[in-house]
Amino acid sequence: MKLLEKTIDSIVGIDRGMEQLALARLADQARPQGSLGVLEPLSARLAAIAGVIDVKLEKKVVVTCAGDHGVVEEGVSLFPQEVTEQMVHNFVIKGASINVLAKHAGAESLAADIGVKAEFDPSLPIIHKKVARGTENFTKGPAMTREQAVAAIEAGIEIVEELVAEGRLDMLGTGDMGIGNTTPSTAIIAVLSGEKVEDLTGRGTGINDAALQRKIDVIKQGIEVNRPDPTDPVDVLAKVGGYEIGALAGLVLGAAAHGIPVVCDGFISTAGALIAGDLAPRAKEYLFASHRSVEVGHTFMHDHLGVDPLLDLGFRLGEGTGAALTMELLDASTRILADVLTFEEVAIKDPHTKG
Amino acid sequence: MKLLEKTIDSIVGIDRGMEQLALARLADQARPQGSLGVLEPLSARLAAIAGVIDVKLEKKVVVTCAGDHGVVEEGVSLFPQEVTEQMVHNFVIKGASINVLAKHAGAESLAADIGVKAEFDPSLPIIHKKVARGTENFTKGPAMTREQAVAAIEAGIEIVEELVAEGRLDMLGTGDMGIGNTTPSTAIIAVLSGEKVEDLTGRGTGINDAALQRKIDVIKQGIEVNRPDPTDPVDVLAKVGGYEIGALAGLVLGAAAHGIPVVCDGFISTAGALIAGDLAPRAKEYLFASHRSVEVGHTFMHDHLGVDPLLDLGFRLGEGTGAALTMELLDASTRILADVLTFEEVAIKDPHTKG
Repeated sequence: MKLLEKTIDSIVGIDRGMEQLALARLADQARPQGSLGVLEPLSARLAAIAGVIDVKLEKKVVVTCAGDHGVVEEGVSLFPQEVTEQMVHNFVIKGASINVLAKHAGAESLAADIGVKAEFDPSLPIIHKKVARGTENFTKGPAMTREQAVAAIEAGIEIVEELVAEGRLDMLGTGDMGIGNTTPSTAIIAVLSGEKVEDLTGRGTGINDAALQRKIDVIKQGIEVNRPDPTDPVDVLAKVGGYEIGALAGLVLGAAAHGIPVVCDGFISTAGALIAGDLAPRAKEYLFASHRSVEVGHTFMHDHLGVDPLLDLGFRLGEGTGAALTMELLDASTRILADVLTFEEVAIKDPHTKG
Repeated sequence: MKLLEKTIDSIVGIDRGMEQLALARLADQARPQGSLGVLEPLSARLAAIAGVIDVKLEKKVVVTCAGDHGVVEEGVSLFPQEVTEQMVHNFVIKGASINVLAKHAGAESLAADIGVKAEFDPSLPIIHKKVARGTENFTKGPAMTREQAVAAIEAGIEIVEELVAEGRLDMLGTGDMGIGNTTPSTAIIAVLSGEKVEDLTGRGTGINDAALQRKIDVIKQGIEVNRPDPTDPVDVLAKVGGYEIGALAGLVLGAAAHGIPVVCDGFISTAGALIAGDLAPRAKEYLFASHRSVEVGHTFMHDHLGVDPLLDLGFRLGEGTGAALTMELLDASTRILADVLTFEEVAIKDPHTKG
């Protein structure tokens, strides 16, 4: 458990002095105070993370973590399990939604195999971090061992460390691919929040009423059979989670440890962020929520994390699509902070204008 | 009134056949149906406007229309009237919020003088379309004559025609600058919607309770003194509107007439869009709402227009700032429609993936 512990220990609080300087500059700009709404405090937090007012988020990366789930044999998803593998190939040929939206955001999009139930050729241009070929069916026992849960989180940390070492990372976006993975994500928020499974369970990619009831029953059974300890996030991940969800937690921890802002995508990415936030509360200072998905449990996750998503576009896709769009907005917020002139700067720059 | 009438007559409906083709392509893409939420129908509407699936929105322009308001002598605004002129100079030196956000969106930002109470040197790089030096105080009579109202609308139309003639316009964003202009904008939605002024009036750039009550009284008085005809949008604009609001209506009409999608910004831009939509209902097919401002009457405007804003970021600035951010999202939606592969395209492109 060395890498995970070392990473958690190395997360330091953000620069609150710089945040105050940023807020003061925003208040001095030649516009009504607070008129750029939620982008203002977000830009100040980005400054506090970077330790400068003029934050440059030039190198953006979205990492889409993929994994399979034994629980799909219970009939909780509309799509067959093979789609996880197929979508990884789609990411490689850059034909998927995340590739298109990451490109629009000026971001790299990378796919990572954490736990797909298929072997990928080692030459395939993805990040190869497979822990196992899919989780076990959690209605019958734990989804994975504790060691595998730690390995999945550490896979995410390693991905960040490699990107940082290569100088490729100013801002990270998280994303997921895994048929059936709203089921473990719902189980995680159910355990961590203590709310009723019925109130947290949504339709994933579009299941009908009967399948929704089955999904609720399956999640309840998984929690009952495994009795995860809500005060031990690794235990929760191991018993009712997924490999890609572990890696998503690791991405957040790794980013926080390296002082990199991290934007979490939808329901599954936020489940990973929950694990990270419970393991290392200070990691949340580096975390930005992107969008509110139509998945009903998402709001409970945001409440648990104490974050507000920026967008509400009716997305229910994952892959990192909401994170990619949000990275554009956060990038815009850095330009507001640095480039919108203060009354004083306007007066100096233009003789017609009196501050 | 020739240009205005000619423009209204030349607005044709968008290509609904192309919209259906776009929706069919979106449904065939390798992802759950509807999973990209509100961006899907918006991308289809953009295709219907352009008449192609692969919509290129390369040349984007935000036009910020500026004007002053005689009614500010009633004490309805926090800022002195001179700020309108000062901000036009700020736009010229590219130091204002709209300049920064338009640049981020890859858009040109242009300022237009429609009715500022100051003379600008003709060499100043703004669009010179002054109709008059500010409106009259509408608590004492009409804000402008009917001829001036038409001239303001036609100024907006001319701006679009000039940009189109120069090949500079694939997508238009609207924006405003005018101290006191939430007051005429509120009066316009009050007249057109028939709702109570109390329920529609907000704090603009941040007035206190006493000033808010004064603003409500001023708007009521303006409507009572002038009795604008709600079935005659030009009459409403003339009696309780503003020059920049007229031009903002003209931007929407001109864009629709030239088959250009137009994104309207906040409360004042939407007031202009209301005038345009009541003059030419088909213009609304080209119109995209950007954000929900904190100004309480904005939702009533969106309801009157039958549009849903994409963003809700707590903005209350104007200038075109919300439009600029929304242009990025709409641009992203065009990439989703054209570039996300269908199951069939994935299968052809990658031998590992079976559709």
